Amino acid sequence: MKNALYFQSGGVTAVIGATAAALIKSHRNASEGRLFAAEHGLSGLINNQLVDASALPESMRLALSQLPGGGLGSGRTLLASYADNPEQWHRVRDVLISHQIGTIYVNGGNGSMDTAAKLVELSDRFTLGLSVIGLPKTIDNDLEGTDTSPGFGSALKYLSVSLMEAARDHCAMATKPSVFILEVMGRHTGWLATCGAVARLPTQMASPLILFPEVMFDPERFVAAVQASFTKHNACVCVVSEGIRTADGQFYAQQNAVARYGHEQLGGAGFAVAQLLREKVSVKVHVAVPDYLQRAARHLASATDIEQAEAVATHAVQLAQEGQSGVMVNIVRDANEPYAWHCDSVRLADIANRERAFPLDWIDQCAYGVTADALTYLQPLIQGEPHQTWRDGLPEYPWVEWPRI
Amino acid sequence: MKNALYFQSGGVTAVIGATAAALIKSHRNASEGRLFAAEHGLSGLINNQLVDASALPESMRLALSQLPGGGLGSGRTLLASYADNPEQWHRVRDVLISHQIGTIYVNGGNGSMDTAAKLVELSDRFTLGLSVIGLPKTIDNDLEGTDTSPGFGSALKYLSVSLMEAARDHCAMATKPSVFILEVMGRHTGWLATCGAVARLPTQMASPLILFPEVMFDPERFVAAVQASFTKHNACVCVVSEGIRTADGQFYAQQNAVARYGHEQLGGAGFAVAQLLREKVSVKVHVAVPDYLQRAARHLASATDIEQAEAVATHAVQLAQEGQSGVMVNIVRDANEPYAWHCDSVRLADIANRERAFPLDWIDQCAYGVTADALTYLQPLIQGEPHQTWRDGLPEYPWVEWPRI
Repeated sequence: MKNALYFQSGGVTAVIGATAAALIKSHRNASEGRLFAAEHGLSGLINNQLVDASALPESMRLALSQLPGGGLGSGRTLLASYADNPEQWHRVRDVLISHQIGTIYVNGGNGSMDTAAKLVELSDRFTLGLSVIGLPKTIDNDLEGTDTSPGFGSALKYLSVSLMEAARDHCAMATKPSVFILEVMGRHTGWLATCGAVARLPTQMASPLILFPEVMFDPERFVAAVQASFTKHNACVCVVSEGIRTADGQFYAQQNAVARYGHEQLGGAGFAVAQLLREKVSVKVHVAVPDYLQRAARHLASATDIEQAEAVATHAVQLAQEGQSGVMVNIVRDANEPYAWHCDSVRLADIANRERAFPLDWIDQCAYGVTADALTYLQPLIQGEPHQTWRDGLPEYPWVEWPRI
Repeated sequence: MKNALYFQSGGVTAVIGATAAALIKSHRNASEGRLFAAEHGLSGLINNQLVDASALPESMRLALSQLPGGGLGSGRTLLASYADNPEQWHRVRDVLISHQIGTIYVNGGNGSMDTAAKLVELSDRFTLGLSVIGLPKTIDNDLEGTDTSPGFGSALKYLSVSLMEAARDHCAMATKPSVFILEVMGRHTGWLATCGAVARLPTQMASPLILFPEVMFDPERFVAAVQASFTKHNACVCVVSEGIRTADGQFYAQQNAVARYGHEQLGGAGFAVAQLLREKVSVKVHVAVPDYLQRAARHLASATDIEQAEAVATHAVQLAQEGQSGVMVNIVRDANEPYAWHCDSVRLADIANRERAFPLDWIDQCAYGVTADALTYLQPLIQGEPHQTWRDGLPEYPWVEWPRI
């Protein structure tokens, strides 16, 4: 089976287009077969919504490499087990056979890597001889088995720069005690919340207080820390992870959300903390919630992150050419300074569905911050400002017209 | 009285440092006297917290020109009338005399221009012979008498780019109907809400629905528009101005805020609209609230805006040299294409405390958008990407150590 298939799975990133574009290029150079792509992830494969990525004109491929989020379309559909949904497996098999697909590239996070692992099982069950290669991607940086995941460095850079700028604004206006809260994504892990420490703020300004999902949120202790910040700086900057929980294990935001909206969508931790401070300290609080902006900000992407987003694609094609399967490309750190890394691979079975926690010993609980070790790990990931194409004052993000098969 | 005084007043912007830095340079070239600056606006003047801006080292002046928000510190204190607070007037007079100040530069919005106008009265009352010059500054673009105000173009550019990126992300994930809401600043005027039209989105994507504070918010009609967007695109992007009001004249956010928090701080219009859609259409809604990020994003400033932020300072010094007083520098548009403009001046009495409305005939109410005339006005203001100094993956925003007097 000479052709290959690529799909994206799970939340998109600012650099996912860079991975897709690099994969198209590497595949062209390495293989005679076509590279098809499924729109909106696995559901595109199930529904036979494939496009011919290898026929994408070069100018469009270059535009795709700079496109945040939606060049191809991702999705949240995962492959069920055969026992639970044999029909789904038969449909996937039929589509793969009809398009003579021998290689599948799955670009996603830990849930998506479980789908990749199941595609290996599917290949075995139907003796398709597939080569299934995972490509890491998540802004949450919670994929096991890799030093980092493409998408994280850019999101961290975006949040760090945003915090630097908003903190300066807040500081300029701090004629009386006031609080600025930045709510960041990260339901279970605090990787992105580290922006509060990565942001380079002058020592004359208050250090941001970081609320990690890994640390039980103690409102009373936190209020005292905010007040301590006031005595020195008249101002307080907080980074609140959307996933902070109280002693009872409940999401802090959800306690409010359920009372208010009667629904379960997370979000609002920043506003919940703001409400707490208004009630307990009677101060003015501003809350910023970047939401999608933090994972889509290609204009503020990390060049290092883009380089890695492209490298995992190149390495994935190489693994497929070697006939490997059931692996995910990973990024291995060789040195911190100067930062050096290379791509290798890990078994899907070892990483699928696992969640890489932010190391607890990297959290400085007393200071609501992180340790020097954490910064040594994080800082290389935000380095470099990539080229961006601008037209009439705005980035050039065209619509990608995918060639039909 | 040979010296001059500069202060910032009201909310800061991404380019306010550019104005301050240009003023220092122009003043140095034009005058033998010192240029002092009051920290945190008028309160710095009242409390005699002045620094010697003319002694700022050139390297720091250049850094200041790239600094968002808090280079000097702004404030919200306004000058009362003499009848209401003669004591305040006497303190201001004493500080001005003790520092031999003959010129005052007030950099602010419409409220601040009222303070500037009162400083002219103060000068007359105490026969100080002051030259009082206003410099425009507001992200809200609601200053009368000027074609635009420094700060607006950059905030509009930031919001437009952010919307382009977030909309691509949202579109990539739109496998079932869902909504993305961007809540923007603008309590009374919809200038910033126009980002929904300035953002260049492919025609294949849904046009953002813009909710202006100028247009009475009709939930029922809006829900129908969202549903219409779903039938075509499966997705809907909305720009919600923080200041939208319902038929009874109440802020839509405040109706919720009061019920929830018992306080009056505005904000939350985006979440209120999200709640409406969850209840009426049962869809997933994401809300981004950039808050301070939209007025502090120097990394995404408009080069045109920076040029104007500097030009108003240069022109202000020129006006002072000519012995003028009681005027604000304004920006006059000479042509739309190619965009041409120059600086002139308007009487403070003609513009202070007035609010420049977004022209109602630039709003396309049926389409929840704006007219071509609006775009012709807006597009020149976001042009150009200025130089930015980066270090270790982050912008260089040092602390400005102001020389003491």
